[in-house]
Amino acid sequence: MMISTKEIEVRYAETDQMGVVYHANYLVWLEMGRTQLIKDLGFDYAGLERQGYLSPVLDVSIQYKQSVRYGEDVTVATWIDTYSRLKTVYGYEIRKTDGSVAATAKTMHTLVSKETFRPIALSKVDLAWHTAYEKACVNN
Amino acid sequence: MMISTKEIEVRYAETDQMGVVYHANYLVWLEMGRTQLIKDLGFDYAGLERQGYLSPVLDVSIQYKQSVRYGEDVTVATWIDTYSRLKTVYGYEIRKTDGSVAATAKTMHTLVSKETFRPIALSKVDLAWHTAYEKACVNN
Amino acid sequence: MMISTKEIEVRYAETDQMGVVYHANYLVWLEMGRTQLIKDLGFDYAGLERQGYLSPVLDVSIQYKQSVRYGEDVTVATWIDTYSRLKTVYGYEIRKTDGSVAATAKTMHTLVSKETFRPIALSKVDLAWHTAYEKACVNN
Amino acid sequence: MMISTKEIEVRYAETDQMGVVYHANYLVWLEMGRTQLIKDLGFDYAGLERQGYLSPVLDVSIQYKQSVRYGEDVTVATWIDTYSRLKTVYGYEIRKTDGSVAATAKTMHTLVSKETFRPIALSKVDLAWHTAYEKACVNN
Repeated sequence: MMISTKEIEVRYAETDQMGVVYHANYLVWLEMGRTQLIKDLGFDYAGLERQGYLSPVLDVSIQYKQSVRYGEDVTVATWIDTYSRLKTVYGYEIRKTDGSVAATAKTMHTLVSKETFRPIALSKVDLAWHTAYEKACVNN
Repeated sequence: MMISTKEIEVRYAETDQMGVVYHANYLVWLEMGRTQLIKDLGFDYAGLERQGYLSPVLDVSIQYKQSVRYGEDVTVATWIDTYSRLKTVYGYEIRKTDGSVAATAKTMHTLVSKETFRPIALSKVDLAWHTAYEKACVNN
Repeated sequence: MMISTKEIEVRYAETDQMGVVYHANYLVWLEMGRTQLIKDLGFDYAGLERQGYLSPVLDVSIQYKQSVRYGEDVTVATWIDTYSRLKTVYGYEIRKTDGSVAATAKTMHTLVSKETFRPIALSKVDLAWHTAYEKACVNN
Repeated sequence: MMISTKEIEVRYAETDQMGVVYHANYLVWLEMGRTQLIKDLGFDYAGLERQGYLSPVLDVSIQYKQSVRYGEDVTVATWIDTYSRLKTVYGYEIRKTDGSVAATAKTMHTLVSKETFRPIALSKVDLAWHTAYEKACVNN
């Protein structure tokens, strides 16, 4: 099991007229958490796309616990919640610098070929990556 | 029961390098669906904020069924799924012009005072709006 | 000469904590103005990309005259300011419903091949489109 | 004279279907450059807003020299180009890690009271900040 962390500086552009970060922008932070997890495991999502694969989002569920303001920093903790042949579920916790939770979330992804948008198993594309995911997965 | 519909023209800015609409942007479309539903019921969310209230998102769950491309239009169908004293759950279906479903979603909201961020019942803020929500709610 | 107009409903997501539309989002509106102009002339930018061409932005200059709020509508007037073999300059005026100007802008674009990112003349790609641009151009 | 630098990791969400960063997102990076410059001078823009002041953008001009891709980092160099009683012009250079220039830009800002949106001189709001800007300004 492995939990990756990514620190993020809140951007002015991320706020809305409520005076806090707009809720859809949390999904961008989740993605930055995933990118970091993949990097920490020694792989590169940008490279995977250059090879002709995409990893679209199938499902997002997110619970907003607390609003976040410009001028604050947040940390996204990311882990692999479940991993199967065609689906990966990532888990997340977004925390403020005081340790309080701003949001929790899960996102489900598949892997597809860029050309056909047909699902393909990660094990067929990159065996080392597949093995790392099996090891890193929390619920294994 | 009431279902409101909002037609949306996909913007170039909404795409990402996958060549399709970036998943976080669907949440913006859900919000446009909510705005339309409120308008169709005869109320005005912008006006509610000017009176000193906000309606933050507590929870989002969304299932992505199909990717959407620039050049396409989508229609967001929005309804009130459940409505209680302090929480409103909206339901959504995003469809393409061919009728196929691009995504389904639910979002949960509360109402708070702008000053204190403390929850307040809609019935105390705007009785007509409260009554309209009770009537329009699907699961009543 | 031809001036195209596109009406835009301001989105909540477009605001920032200043309580008005975030300045970078005006550039998205300019793009919607361009899309409309191309459509009004009988062409389709999405189709041009599918054929293997892109029209990247080389230069933007924008003057913000007045802030715009959620709940308002704006209209983008778009025209072709100058048009030459490899560069097209579009002019824009963003107005509120009361007729007052919210912003004026110009953007310069070129046309490139998707594969090489090398500039190519529109006249070589689509002669009808090239001819329409020559006719529609304000400063000819 | 002072030039501030801010390193930025390109986000997937910042790309569009051209496969490169969407042009409007460069304006968000400029803002991060400004935030850093202010921080480097020992001040805090978020704090200024909490005191009841805003610094809206009056004018942006930006020249795109080169596209930027997800997986790359950029550095924004920011300086004060001109500074007068009611207007501040910032200058920017966005560079890739190989040192090549991705964009150059200038943005003009004023300072207003949050309540009235009327311009006010920075010297009346924060004398130390005013003095620091006079000193840091390139064209003095």
